[in-house]
Amino acid sequence: MKNWEAKCLSSEFGKILKVSVFGQSHGKAIGVVVDGLPAGEAVDLEALNAFLDRRKPGKNPLSTARKEADTPVFLSGLEDGKTCGAPLCAMIENADQHSKDYRELADKPRPGHADYTAAVKWGGHADMRGGGHFSGRLTAPLCIVGGIAKQILARRGIYIGAHLASVGHARDMLFPLYPTAELFDAVAAKPLPVLNDHAWETMQAAILAAKEDLDSVGGTVECAATGLPAGLGDPMFEGVENRLAAALFGIPAVKGVEFGDGFHAATRLGSENNDAFTMEDGQVRAESNHAGGILGGITTGMPLVLRVAVKPTPSIGKPQKTVSLSAMENTDLTIHGRHDPCIAHRAVPVVEAVTAAVLLDLLLEGNHGTF
Amino acid sequence: MKNWEAKCLSSEFGKILKVSVFGQSHGKAIGVVVDGLPAGEAVDLEALNAFLDRRKPGKNPLSTARKEADTPVFLSGLEDGKTCGAPLCAMIENADQHSKDYRELADKPRPGHADYTAAVKWGGHADMRGGGHFSGRLTAPLCIVGGIAKQILARRGIYIGAHLASVGHARDMLFPLYPTAELFDAVAAKPLPVLNDHAWETMQAAILAAKEDLDSVGGTVECAATGLPAGLGDPMFEGVENRLAAALFGIPAVKGVEFGDGFHAATRLGSENNDAFTMEDGQVRAESNHAGGILGGITTGMPLVLRVAVKPTPSIGKPQKTVSLSAMENTDLTIHGRHDPCIAHRAVPVVEAVTAAVLLDLLLEGNHGTF
Amino acid sequence: MKNWEAKCLSSEFGKILKVSVFGQSHGKAIGVVVDGLPAGEAVDLEALNAFLDRRKPGKNPLSTARKEADTPVFLSGLEDGKTCGAPLCAMIENADQHSKDYRELADKPRPGHADYTAAVKWGGHADMRGGGHFSGRLTAPLCIVGGIAKQILARRGIYIGAHLASVGHARDMLFPLYPTAELFDAVAAKPLPVLNDHAWETMQAAILAAKEDLDSVGGTVECAATGLPAGLGDPMFEGVENRLAAALFGIPAVKGVEFGDGFHAATRLGSENNDAFTMEDGQVRAESNHAGGILGGITTGMPLVLRVAVKPTPSIGKPQKTVSLSAMENTDLTIHGRHDPCIAHRAVPVVEAVTAAVLLDLLLEGNHGTF
Amino acid sequence: MKNWEAKCLSSEFGKILKVSVFGQSHGKAIGVVVDGLPAGEAVDLEALNAFLDRRKPGKNPLSTARKEADTPVFLSGLEDGKTCGAPLCAMIENADQHSKDYRELADKPRPGHADYTAAVKWGGHADMRGGGHFSGRLTAPLCIVGGIAKQILARRGIYIGAHLASVGHARDMLFPLYPTAELFDAVAAKPLPVLNDHAWETMQAAILAAKEDLDSVGGTVECAATGLPAGLGDPMFEGVENRLAAALFGIPAVKGVEFGDGFHAATRLGSENNDAFTMEDGQVRAESNHAGGILGGITTGMPLVLRVAVKPTPSIGKPQKTVSLSAMENTDLTIHGRHDPCIAHRAVPVVEAVTAAVLLDLLLEGNHGTF
Repeated sequence: MKNWEAKCLSSEFGKILKVSVFGQSHGKAIGVVVDGLPAGEAVDLEALNAFLDRRKPGKNPLSTARKEADTPVFLSGLEDGKTCGAPLCAMIENADQHSKDYRELADKPRPGHADYTAAVKWGGHADMRGGGHFSGRLTAPLCIVGGIAKQILARRGIYIGAHLASVGHARDMLFPLYPTAELFDAVAAKPLPVLNDHAWETMQAAILAAKEDLDSVGGTVECAATGLPAGLGDPMFEGVENRLAAALFGIPAVKGVEFGDGFHAATRLGSENNDAFTMEDGQVRAESNHAGGILGGITTGMPLVLRVAVKPTPSIGKPQKTVSLSAMENTDLTIHGRHDPCIAHRAVPVVEAVTAAVLLDLLLEGNHGTF
Repeated sequence: MKNWEAKCLSSEFGKILKVSVFGQSHGKAIGVVVDGLPAGEAVDLEALNAFLDRRKPGKNPLSTARKEADTPVFLSGLEDGKTCGAPLCAMIENADQHSKDYRELADKPRPGHADYTAAVKWGGHADMRGGGHFSGRLTAPLCIVGGIAKQILARRGIYIGAHLASVGHARDMLFPLYPTAELFDAVAAKPLPVLNDHAWETMQAAILAAKEDLDSVGGTVECAATGLPAGLGDPMFEGVENRLAAALFGIPAVKGVEFGDGFHAATRLGSENNDAFTMEDGQVRAESNHAGGILGGITTGMPLVLRVAVKPTPSIGKPQKTVSLSAMENTDLTIHGRHDPCIAHRAVPVVEAVTAAVLLDLLLEGNHGTF
Repeated sequence: MKNWEAKCLSSEFGKILKVSVFGQSHGKAIGVVVDGLPAGEAVDLEALNAFLDRRKPGKNPLSTARKEADTPVFLSGLEDGKTCGAPLCAMIENADQHSKDYRELADKPRPGHADYTAAVKWGGHADMRGGGHFSGRLTAPLCIVGGIAKQILARRGIYIGAHLASVGHARDMLFPLYPTAELFDAVAAKPLPVLNDHAWETMQAAILAAKEDLDSVGGTVECAATGLPAGLGDPMFEGVENRLAAALFGIPAVKGVEFGDGFHAATRLGSENNDAFTMEDGQVRAESNHAGGILGGITTGMPLVLRVAVKPTPSIGKPQKTVSLSAMENTDLTIHGRHDPCIAHRAVPVVEAVTAAVLLDLLLEGNHGTF
Repeated sequence: MKNWEAKCLSSEFGKILKVSVFGQSHGKAIGVVVDGLPAGEAVDLEALNAFLDRRKPGKNPLSTARKEADTPVFLSGLEDGKTCGAPLCAMIENADQHSKDYRELADKPRPGHADYTAAVKWGGHADMRGGGHFSGRLTAPLCIVGGIAKQILARRGIYIGAHLASVGHARDMLFPLYPTAELFDAVAAKPLPVLNDHAWETMQAAILAAKEDLDSVGGTVECAATGLPAGLGDPMFEGVENRLAAALFGIPAVKGVEFGDGFHAATRLGSENNDAFTMEDGQVRAESNHAGGILGGITTGMPLVLRVAVKPTPSIGKPQKTVSLSAMENTDLTIHGRHDPCIAHRAVPVVEAVTAAVLLDLLLEGNHGTF
């Protein structure tokens, strides 16, 4: 039998709440189908759009000047402002995009981008204009489902928030790992999602320096969920960490995921890292929360805390070495156009969104105990 | 309808190669069913047992003195030394275990262990003797499937190796990220899986100091795969990183997973982190490998490199604060018996095993291109 | 924790080729996301629209006079007439629908419809106008994915065809079970999809009699695939029969699925039912094909033959007994408007479509042998 | 890259309750891993063994004289007679089997068996002694999980029963489709699982006639579940019918599955087939139950009724035509040894078992409404 010319891909996650993302950066539309949302849940569209605004570019001088309207149109699943049980489909139409630079990039894969791996996998068939299906633009549909999930969870006392925890070497970490909903509300209201406004100045300097130098810089995002019941998740391969990590690595540019003290825990002693249990108001609590709210893959009821590493934007203005795939020879590449010198701060709501969707999926399984 | 007394768990991973782990630490047997192995693959039992030996305790003064025989019995799927297409089931019978200390632990959850979350989830029904289904002992079945996967991959030129990359603050990292099969063969033949024998001395000192102090210490494991084709994996949620992370967090005590430069990449500039493409012997190569062999979720053909953070063993001899779940009051706990002061070095073959199983699963999908 | 008001649903199938259907009958749009299509496959839109036309109502006096435009808009995954590797999303916008009759139906569940079960499951939240997500209209997106799958398969010599095998007691079955692509091409070109034009007259009479009597009548569809390789499918729960049945029962009104001689085989002797093997042109063949091309869940290389039972349209003009869910008392219901007196003939392309999608999914796994 | 010699298979089903079957007929052991059982559920081993006895051969002159001990050993998941949350593994060791006849069968595929398709798929690597992984013996592990599921469901008022509904042309069907738990208890207590003892005489005659003639005969099994809540299941591809059919076709020799009136419904009028709703004791009920308790893929609360077609045992004593795979030429085959002239009656508990496991899986999702 004749073989397939090229093979397939998969852009879905979730077990009960199944999320299927579609679209290419410069195609007709991008969007998402969400199967498994509980029926009768109100969706506050104003709050949803405000959430979507948080990932938009062009809000400040640190981002690219591109304007994305990104207003979702709901094709199904939402009637009279409430979910109706049927799968929800939301679509964002792409405004006209100038794809003039694409021809060169199709032949000369950009270092750090998926251009080369897409070419290997789908040959000449991939629509890689603007990054195609690999584009950061595909995080907008993720924010739609995540924004809805955040609203559903908030009605049940579960709050998900995130902040920019570092840019380059400038850090702004939670300590201790006991954030509150109020803290994250305050962060979300700031022009940039930081805990400590002084830290932001150092971060900003790092971003502006990179920008001036036609370069880019990486960062980390710290995300937490408060109000989760204890007993959520399963041991081994269906643990809360497994399922969150599996989805979080789906955000473009994420190269690491850790929970609680994460890699830092690997440098410590057991007596430092173990969280002592104690009674507080008749409830079992952990005095510290180095575990980030998860033991054995299962939530402890303490805040869930995770961190993701976002690599520096691969699109930089400096000349770079690459190859011509048609000529199979070395060549140079200079990427023109405006690019974000840092995407870590724009990833903050995306990390919240993915975390919210995964936690809602876990909660919908109804699989936590009732000690 | 009467509700379930307590809910369920899941100990499976894989899409084509489905791995289902069973057993409790002190139950009758532990084991694994592997569905989807290609037929006609020889399994070298001597090599497999040698691989299993690498995770055994009691090999040196740094591990607990417990002896585990851990010789697998193959109940199905392996006939005349070859896989036969039917699901493979391998079982390791548990020798008699003295569970005398269990009664106290059942009431007083050990800090850092899953005792508390298991109690929340399954009430009094969980069999938590020796850690039950959460025990590190469950990594033995993972090594069976991983050891077989390593043999199948090796016949196709794919080599998976790992080493102990840090203990506490003592580090021994790969640089550059271009390991070879020969390097890892040499590491695996050493009494302890390190690159640099001098680094081991500092690590050993950290472990012995922790042991003497009735404490424990964490570490990291670095794992690599060489010989992978480019084009393996998919964008977004079925990427190589997503699928590896989802499985690696199933190893007890893992709190972080990163690929390539991982969290370190988040501190760097784009011009430092991007891997320039270049022609070498008529092939496209990356000059550096900060991406750890993965761009856009898809392999580049360069070595795949990942790192996992292993927290310090939660079982320590020092007295700790905890609660009595029956009395719902604060209390103290001293864990008796012998415990590994560090488990990171024993995790080395386990990380190899899980990585091998996931990569074989991905390869069996036949989903990489043919540029 | 506050419980979910109502729970979720799932409208997906497939393992490599994942199909996710969305939309309600009277919502903004219906559509489908198809994840996992091979890249670089041409889609002949004219042929696709001709295929979609085959399920449309209003083609002859036997169907309802409603007109559905049903022209799909491709939002993603299709560029320059070819699949591009990214998930394909196709949408059909719903023209304005008059939903005036809905208020009564929302309270009085129609016998034989999902009105009652939807009310139980989603309370008042379900959008059941025109049948909502349960509507036969949702078979249009299935035909989009199936029509594309048929084209991809045809290029590899695999042909899927179906015909109307019975209406009421009038039957028109394949015998022997060795159909050809030419036979089904001829069937598809007829105004109604029958093998035997005389049989059609009896069927037509049954449909017209039901129509005149404000009643409806059921029927069966027989579907076959020729050109399949031997060795496709797996034993037990991933067999070709399992996977086809799981998807075929997703077509509204299907109440039975059988393969080969199916229920008829249960009345026969082994010596009658066994298919003798024989050599033909150097190939192993089965003299008869009572097995419908499947043994042990795996294809034999003979034509795959299946049949589905389609119940009579539940919407009939006769007065029926039902209950008022608001008053919880008995009441009567007369459904107004025009309704198909038979839907079995319109189900013919839908059965082809679902069969094609499942077979493509199986083939994409690359999981058949090479004897 | 070197291709796989042969490809893989899958013997799993379930979403929350995951069932993974392993073993070959003449291998060391057969068994099952069940992941997702609720914790704290008592398992009455005596009742379970009595259930397993119902599928055993050699109980009466109609079955083969082979004796199978089939006493399961529980390797994990069951402690002190209760499930403990961890995956349950049960194993049945195979007594020594004489595999002398196998050499001939390996070359000459038996008509109606999977010998040929296994040879195509796994080449010479399949262990097909006694039917290998395709053997009816693999239904014993299914009965273990199903027997446990039946006990768990019974404690919640859900009863699953089945009976032999036909042998050849002799029929013994439920009418109306309103069975009770008492009815099925009475059936299960009979030496053969029939409703009507007179019907049994005709069935018995058909089996004995086939036996005498070195032939075999097919039959059907009718299965029902009472006490199910309304609102279980989902529309389209995760409906109760889809999920049951997907699993039921995993029982060897099943060639058709239908629900309610099934294929008979396709011959009827809407006015005959629609089930009128009526109030009864303050509850919505259906006067008739032609739908078999399912509308739109979702349970109505009426008894769920399904039927499966079991083909005649393919192993018959008559000489048959086949091919030699080594010589690639026509040849004859006479199967020696004792074989069941009918397996439909032995399939009765197996159909109950699979139905129970699937329904428990659905219930564990907690996905039905609360009208």
